[in-house]
Amino acid sequence: GPGQARRPQTTIFTLMSALAQEHGAVNLGQGFPDESGPAHIVEAAAAAMREGRNQYPPMPGIPELRQAISEHQRHWYGLEPDPGDGVVVTAGASEAIAASMLALVEPGDEVIAFEPCYDSYKACIEMAGGVLVPVRLEAPGYRPDRERLRAAVTARTRVILVNSPHNPTGTVFTRAELEAVAALAVGNDLVAVTDEVYEHLVFDGREHVPLATLPGMWDRTVTIGSGGKTFSLTGWKIGWASGPAHLVDRVKAVKQYLSFASGTPFQYGIATALASGDEYYRDLLEGYQRRRDLLADGLADLGFTVHRPEGTYFVTTGVEAFGYEDGMAFCLALPEKCGVVAVPNQVFYADGQVARPEVRFTFCKPEAVIEDGLERLRRGL
Amino acid sequence: GPGQARRPQTTIFTLMSALAQEHGAVNLGQGFPDESGPAHIVEAAAAAMREGRNQYPPMPGIPELRQAISEHQRHWYGLEPDPGDGVVVTAGASEAIAASMLALVEPGDEVIAFEPCYDSYKACIEMAGGVLVPVRLEAPGYRPDRERLRAAVTARTRVILVNSPHNPTGTVFTRAELEAVAALAVGNDLVAVTDEVYEHLVFDGREHVPLATLPGMWDRTVTIGSGGKTFSLTGWKIGWASGPAHLVDRVKAVKQYLSFASGTPFQYGIATALASGDEYYRDLLEGYQRRRDLLADGLADLGFTVHRPEGTYFVTTGVEAFGYEDGMAFCLALPEKCGVVAVPNQVFYADGQVARPEVRFTFCKPEAVIEDGLERLRRGL
Ligand SMILES: CSCCC(=O)C(=O)O
Ligand SMILES: CSCCC(=O)C(=O)O
Repeated sequence: GPGQARRPQTTIFTLMSALAQEHGAVNLGQGFPDESGPAHIVEAAAAAMREGRNQYPPMPGIPELRQAISEHQRHWYGLEPDPGDGVVVTAGASEAIAASMLALVEPGDEVIAFEPCYDSYKACIEMAGGVLVPVRLEAPGYRPDRERLRAAVTARTRVILVNSPHNPTGTVFTRAELEAVAALAVGNDLVAVTDEVYEHLVFDGREHVPLATLPGMWDRTVTIGSGGKTFSLTGWKIGWASGPAHLVDRVKAVKQYLSFASGTPFQYGIATALASGDEYYRDLLEGYQRRRDLLADGLADLGFTVHRPEGTYFVTTGVEAFGYEDGMAFCLALPEKCGVVAVPNQVFYADGQVARPEVRFTFCKPEAVIEDGLERLRRGL
Repeated sequence: GPGQARRPQTTIFTLMSALAQEHGAVNLGQGFPDESGPAHIVEAAAAAMREGRNQYPPMPGIPELRQAISEHQRHWYGLEPDPGDGVVVTAGASEAIAASMLALVEPGDEVIAFEPCYDSYKACIEMAGGVLVPVRLEAPGYRPDRERLRAAVTARTRVILVNSPHNPTGTVFTRAELEAVAALAVGNDLVAVTDEVYEHLVFDGREHVPLATLPGMWDRTVTIGSGGKTFSLTGWKIGWASGPAHLVDRVKAVKQYLSFASGTPFQYGIATALASGDEYYRDLLEGYQRRRDLLADGLADLGFTVHRPEGTYFVTTGVEAFGYEDGMAFCLALPEKCGVVAVPNQVFYADGQVARPEVRFTFCKPEAVIEDGLERLRRGL
């Protein structure tokens, strides 16, 4: 129930990043790049600070950034959120998720999400008094299953929470798979919340399809994006939600009482960032695809069962070859044993206490760090 | 009920700051300074950015800032929150309030707060499924009344939310008044949450007494502070909560799912800021006291009924002399009539729809801006 849900435990990221520091380990757990995004973006934020742009921004975000977010959606996807009342800047995608759940979920409502899922989903749904109804992406392919999805809907279902590219599995939902989600949402009059923070990390020529572009979806979809992920500035925590005014209004109405507004100089920086030419995104993608291959191939060579991701900057592996059925135990031993930190996928399941052999590694690190991590694993395992 | 509470309206600050922009008005409404805090603090944040400190900070905040917050509490008040597990950095005091309410209030719990009160209190209490039980600070003195306080306690009371120096009235609770609060909290085994963001803005030689310093209170009190208010960097949104680990743990457990963590380079800046010598705080106070007098005297000269504040950077006035019993109507007319924005105190009352003659002006502006505002009022009224 909601009472208990308000006492969630420490997140896996806090725990594992603390272990990384304690053991001087290579941190392939929490998803943050080691290197900041482009210097001109950092300089744009620094310039804003020097020019005295250090007071509250307008609650929904500075107009320049809302305009840039809207323009980005138009340029890449043909979507046109109104920069006036269809966009709200948030303290990272995390706050957009929290505000969306608190805004859209009533006590007793059910929220469908594909499992495994980012750990804040369950916590935020339960903070709102709602119930997470997980629909499993089944190994080894981790693809959404239309029948399983249909079976999850009840009279209490209110929201469907989608995340593609998908953390932790790296699944990029195909257009057909998203059409099944859309049909379900339209048929049952659900609101969709779609976490697309890895929208620019889609490999091998695959396409990122925003759920909001599908027929019947615009008017019922809140789309969540992130400057931190796309521009390698995770500590700035500039995220956003966009969509039709009637939904964004509800998100804003909650968000204004969470942080009110935040990160004024960073908002100028990310507005600059979003004006980057297509080549920025292409280079980003190429670099990540190369590092995906480096990490995935390296882990496979070491004996991990590797699920090569279609998107995101995470690789899900199986650790059975090392005598572990329990990825949590593996991850708790790893910092001391090898000087490497990874994250057990178990924490992304609603039954978070059940042991699973899957372990997630991130490749959002310089190649030398990934190579160092692989070498440490080779020596320690 | 909680369902409705999740659809709060646009805050008065959003509305009034929009009106200010529309009319090119002098904004004496929302409480943010026009001028950024010390340049060396801005440079410290800029340097952190250039050094690449742009990724997620540890969820509870960077160790340097937690240490500085703890040290600040020790230096000024003799309190010793553990920088390890007794301090959490938040996305402004707003997030500390939201996380505290979501962490400490269960559905059906009652939370006592002195009324008028900052508008997010009610919204956050209701997001948690709780009920705000307001205890009136009665005009003209706006002092807490012991009997009224006692009468507000029921078997469902769980938390008492205190704000001294008090926004909007400027009341600074005396030690004796806080002792009455403490006696009530101890006697009824309540948790106290105390919003002390204006701790350094206490005029005329008065003393700021943190509630947590009173006997029996440390172990049951979450103390909230703000870098934005004290260092005139409201757009950075660096706030914090401190107290005993068992309470701060609960706040962290919720906060990690709101924004996770935020503002990495700003955290370095505010850590630098908190190392300021006593003369910084003395100069800040002297400047504000001079501007309080400028604004309060100026408004009195114009015919406002002026309640001279003991603390904060707000003056509460009465607008009856101008033919208004309804401060909201006065504030809605003011931007066009005078080119000035103020905030109606009505929005800080639980029965927010009831008209009241009180209107709040801020003096956190340069003297020239305050003088311009007064001159515009003189011409327009
Ligand atoms: C906000 S901490 C988690 C970062 C992240 O997105 C991940 O590692 O999955
Ligand atoms: C977060 S916007 C409100 C600013 C403020 O503290 C006030 O004006 O009361």
